Amino acid sequence: MQNRPFEFDVATTMEPIEVVDGVHHFATRVHPGWDISGNANGGYLMALVGRATSMATGRPDCVTITAHYLAPCPAGEARVEVVPVRAGRRFATVTASLFLRDGVGGEKEVIRVLATVGDLAGGPGGPSAMQRSVPSIAKFDECILMSATSVNDFAHIHGRLATRGQAEDIAFRSGTPSGRATMRGWFAFADDRPIDSTALLLASDAFPPAVFNIDLPAAWVPTVELTVHVRATPAPGPVACFFETRFVQNGLLEEDGEMWDSNGVLVAQSRQLALVPRG
Amino acid sequence: MQNRPFEFDVATTMEPIEVVDGVHHFATRVHPGWDISGNANGGYLMALVGRATSMATGRPDCVTITAHYLAPCPAGEARVEVVPVRAGRRFATVTASLFLRDGVGGEKEVIRVLATVGDLAGGPGGPSAMQRSVPSIAKFDECILMSATSVNDFAHIHGRLATRGQAEDIAFRSGTPSGRATMRGWFAFADDRPIDSTALLLASDAFPPAVFNIDLPAAWVPTVELTVHVRATPAPGPVACFFETRFVQNGLLEEDGEMWDSNGVLVAQSRQLALVPRG
Repeated sequence: MQNRPFEFDVATTMEPIEVVDGVHHFATRVHPGWDISGNANGGYLMALVGRATSMATGRPDCVTITAHYLAPCPAGEARVEVVPVRAGRRFATVTASLFLRDGVGGEKEVIRVLATVGDLAGGPGGPSAMQRSVPSIAKFDECILMSATSVNDFAHIHGRLATRGQAEDIAFRSGTPSGRATMRGWFAFADDRPIDSTALLLASDAFPPAVFNIDLPAAWVPTVELTVHVRATPAPGPVACFFETRFVQNGLLEEDGEMWDSNGVLVAQSRQLALVPRG
Repeated sequence: MQNRPFEFDVATTMEPIEVVDGVHHFATRVHPGWDISGNANGGYLMALVGRATSMATGRPDCVTITAHYLAPCPAGEARVEVVPVRAGRRFATVTASLFLRDGVGGEKEVIRVLATVGDLAGGPGGPSAMQRSVPSIAKFDECILMSATSVNDFAHIHGRLATRGQAEDIAFRSGTPSGRATMRGWFAFADDRPIDSTALLLASDAFPPAVFNIDLPAAWVPTVELTVHVRATPAPGPVACFFETRFVQNGLLEEDGEMWDSNGVLVAQSRQLALVPRG
């Protein structure tokens, strides 16, 4: 039995405050320890707001969620607003925002979200077709635990995770980038929290950028926009992750992600648009 | 010289009405002729709202735009609201909605948009890297003009376009689907309107669904969400388009798109989440 609550559940706690004109207000806290160099990870911020959208609508899964990142977000007290757009039988659509408080009565919006939420377990089933199989990712035990390495000096989020990276894809850290903008590995929590649809939002941004493997500065890659489609509820166990960047141009790059569960089911796809890092 | 305005410009005309508390209000009209069986095409609706976001912010390009589709939209009088989220030096972020009027004093929101807009011509340049080259697409002259075929009986949008499909990818219409969920071809306007970033929003949804080439009913594929990243301003000439669906499961499918200009530059990427068609 787990005696303490899981870290991710603590770090995404939402306290419902009130509902005014259909708008759900929550108090929350951007927790330290889910950051890169002091700024909250983009997937963690999406998970915070994603959890609020589920609570506000009574629907467990963000089937499609897009976040636009407006400002860097250090840890601190915050609030989330969820504004209804449409509620249907199968899906509800909402917008949502996270506002970080500045401690002197002010606040700043750090992400704006547009999401359609539903219940993946209640899906219609129907035909399935895969035009692509599970990508080639080294076995869990053959990948390198991210938290056991020096990256953890600034990528504090890895202290919360049992995420592993495929050796050749994280060799950029020792100065030998693979030359291919791919990042493969496994996502899991350090405290073995089960991976649900909210955790997949975190997973979608929990690895080093794939472009660290090509000839670009290994510096901050600010996310402009991140969209995640949660396609199925993951089976128990770590989730295999595959990220790649195909096009870097004009100061922008995209990173596409696929997340696969232990049964070989695609559980999420992600795509983000980010700024090219500057050395 | 072009004596008449281009059809797409007429069909995306936005009349600024007022700005109240920072919210820009426009009157517009969802034009007939940009529809499939009477419902406005999703790319056309995105282009309508995309144009309004550019006008409201004074920034020409939707660098990343996400639309959630709330209801089918027949032609009719409409209004668009653009609500500012953040304005920075390089980008501005807004939400926006299109409301279709019902003719008796009511209205219905048909799409909700979250967009970050900027000026691609004013980008920082910087390093470029392509991890993937232009996909193999048959030459423009070897592809089949969509408007010259029977699909135009219901896909009225093709009457406005000079869009061409690669023969094997549109053979589903004669009962011989390729078996591969790929749709390739060229996007262009029938009246030779230049293709700008707003037109790319239309192009992202202007082809038949790639899944018509696999064993699914060739029926309506309702878009839940569409995201387009405009990555560069297209050079003159038709735009090569490549769409594919890789995963159909649990009643949902994604369709990924790439759009390439005549210089071999990636000008846009798209991804939509849609409902699996029912026979």
